[in-house]
Amino acid sequence: MQQNKAQMSKKSTATQQQAEARFAYEGLDRVIHERARLSVLTSLVTHPKGLSFLDLKELCALTDGNLSRHLQVLEKSNLVEIVKGHERNRPQTICSITASGRKRYTEYLCILEQVVRDAAKGMNREQPDMPHNLAPSRA
Amino acid sequence: MQQNKAQMSKKSTATQQQAEARFAYEGLDRVIHERARLSVLTSLVTHPKGLSFLDLKELCALTDGNLSRHLQVLEKSNLVEIVKGHERNRPQTICSITASGRKRYTEYLCILEQVVRDAAKGMNREQPDMPHNLAPSRA
Repeated sequence: MQQNKAQMSKKSTATQQQAEARFAYEGLDRVIHERARLSVLTSLVTHPKGLSFLDLKELCALTDGNLSRHLQVLEKSNLVEIVKGHERNRPQTICSITASGRKRYTEYLCILEQVVRDAAKGMNREQPDMPHNLAPSRA
Repeated sequence: MQQNKAQMSKKSTATQQQAEARFAYEGLDRVIHERARLSVLTSLVTHPKGLSFLDLKELCALTDGNLSRHLQVLEKSNLVEIVKGHERNRPQTICSITASGRKRYTEYLCILEQVVRDAAKGMNREQPDMPHNLAPSRA
């Protein structure tokens, strides 16, 4: 009984802390949140068959060096997979998002949506125009 | 005429580069995008009358040192305003978002919404459940 009370008190303290830290967004994983890496991962999540290093470089407007560096971080975290192969006898590097990467990206996205909701609320956009904006773009 | 052609060509190259850099998200201002600062700014945009240093610290789950450091960056960029005053004879620091900060945060938010849209599209959420999610939360 004593233990149950202690557990309940521990739980309510945690809930209270969570309520107090309303805008902490702990789930905004720093590995994913960095702008260039968010760019790379969003490109890859949109191209499930993977993208060549060159295509990825253009889509994200990154230099060779920058893209390589960020891919290393993402590969080390098991978020992307890099396969070196050949296309018409030319060496080609194909990058794709892993299953674990997709899962973590989805979790990250939920928090990002929460930021957008909080902000919309704060800016008196009680009925934010997201439903309209969210229609699949024509690009 | 020659000049007009050159201008047109320059313009179409820029448009082409923009299309190629589809996922670059250049507008994700690094000053705002950093997780702790995004947390601080979202708290402040939701509290137009400003927040005390202590309340902000709790809402964002930051330490004194971290919050001070990030507030300095935000103040230097003219995104927040920090006023030292008194409340019941005790010194109190009140932080609020500036008009320029609100404008830049709004621009940032538009790009963030674009990321969410792109990702939703990439994850085969053709009709993403954002409209439901975006209803003002009860918290």
